[in-house]
Amino acid sequence: MRLMDMASWQSQLRKGAAELVLLTVLSRGEAYGLEILARIRSAGELVSEGSLYPLLNRLEKAGRIIGRWDLPAEGGNPRKYYRLTDEGAALAEAMRAAWIDFRTTITTLVEDQP
Amino acid sequence: MRLMDMASWQSQLRKGAAELVLLTVLSRGEAYGLEILARIRSAGELVSEGSLYPLLNRLEKAGRIIGRWDLPAEGGNPRKYYRLTDEGAALAEAMRAAWIDFRTTITTLVEDQP
Repeated sequence: MRLMDMASWQSQLRKGAAELVLLTVLSRGEAYGLEILARIRSAGELVSEGSLYPLLNRLEKAGRIIGRWDLPAEGGNPRKYYRLTDEGAALAEAMRAAWIDFRTTITTLVEDQP
Repeated sequence: MRLMDMASWQSQLRKGAAELVLLTVLSRGEAYGLEILARIRSAGELVSEGSLYPLLNRLEKAGRIIGRWDLPAEGGNPRKYYRLTDEGAALAEAMRAAWIDFRTTITTLVEDQP
């Protein structure tokens, strides 16, 4: 591992978590871009609007999520709703379990008293 | 972020945490390589013996830790003991605080019920 300054290191942590978080948010139900962003934003600055759409596109191309266009009943611009595919749902669950393992290990080493 | 398979993703998480864990272990007192490894290993397979020494070398070159050679009183091979520099201690504390922020954010998003 290259030694990194703090900002790069925090950015690397966040990038590593972005896909996990996005799949988890969608595992709670279909949502469109701004809804996803609002759910994520409520817990900090993890994914910016600029990085959300490229990530959604990559996840869709990889077959992990699938989008459909819909027109809001109240009028307005079409929205693209995303939901998990079966593969995406399985991946979300596997990543969640791996995250919990990882978090437990680091917490034991870093946060507990010696 | 490039989409990665699970194994690469887990490996990326572990690499991101390796420096934090190593600095934290040394913040509890001077230790030599195999001692460090034993402290880390007790909480999982975070850092291998093959990756520990290169990481220690890089941290020493970066001025975050400092090593000294010592001969065990009971005889045997010389051991290199490492301790944090002031800069390393400050970095360890900053990384620990950033880790707790990050872990809290992801836990809220991923582990709590919707």
